[in-house]
Amino acid sequence: VTARPEAIAEDLLRTGRVAHLATAGADGRPHVVPVVFAWLGGRIYTPVDRKRKRVADPKRLRRVRNLGENPRVAVVVDRWDEDWERLAYVLVEGEATLLESGPEWERAAGALLERYPQYRAQPIAGRPIIRVAVDRMTAWQAAR
Amino acid sequence: VTARPEAIAEDLLRTGRVAHLATAGADGRPHVVPVVFAWLGGRIYTPVDRKRKRVADPKRLRRVRNLGENPRVAVVVDRWDEDWERLAYVLVEGEATLLESGPEWERAAGALLERYPQYRAQPIAGRPIIRVAVDRMTAWQAAR
Repeated sequence: VTARPEAIAEDLLRTGRVAHLATAGADGRPHVVPVVFAWLGGRIYTPVDRKRKRVADPKRLRRVRNLGENPRVAVVVDRWDEDWERLAYVLVEGEATLLESGPEWERAAGALLERYPQYRAQPIAGRPIIRVAVDRMTAWQAAR
Repeated sequence: VTARPEAIAEDLLRTGRVAHLATAGADGRPHVVPVVFAWLGGRIYTPVDRKRKRVADPKRLRRVRNLGENPRVAVVVDRWDEDWERLAYVLVEGEATLLESGPEWERAAGALLERYPQYRAQPIAGRPIIRVAVDRMTAWQAAR
């Protein structure tokens, strides 16, 4: 079954459990990490949460430092399958902003808690959330 | 069980089925796509294969155009699990080169065919393979 690109994108953004966030520093060096996310109101939200980090201060994390130098990001959500006819992904390109508090932070934190019951044991409170405003979205699927 | 970082990295690179390749153009805009890959001789090889592409000419693909402008890339291989104590990833940063033929291309194509029986139905012959020479490798796991 071949769905319309918009339907594929929506499905991946609503149901995907993990995304990959790519950033680049001022020096042009790309960086990419797996992240959890919520898709809410046409934006992607991904927390800089309490999962173990190489540096304790979230501001010193590579992804966060890169955003300070260059707010352009790319986020991909994809479906892997050994049957390559079932492969699909959605690529979101946009601009990232770090939210630290406020109503939008609250809504995003609520959506993340709803999507990931894991946050009951590991609160998001006090942690920054990266908001990605979408400039461009590209859906892809293998099957014609 | 907590393994040494080197062991985690090696395990992910040997057994992971999908990686995520991040590139950035001269304009600093990052890009990221899911890719299949082989880890061989301390390098990552990922083909620009015949899976359906938005453009027919591999040279016009965004990842390939970006490499022409900026050979720096990042590749992440990760393990997702709803038990966040089991999360792990390895991030490889390095320089990419496009191989179109020759002994190294042949070895990489052989390794890819061995890892992905799917290539029996969808030959790699004639397709470029991106080689990533590793400058830096960072392994991460959630469990302490």
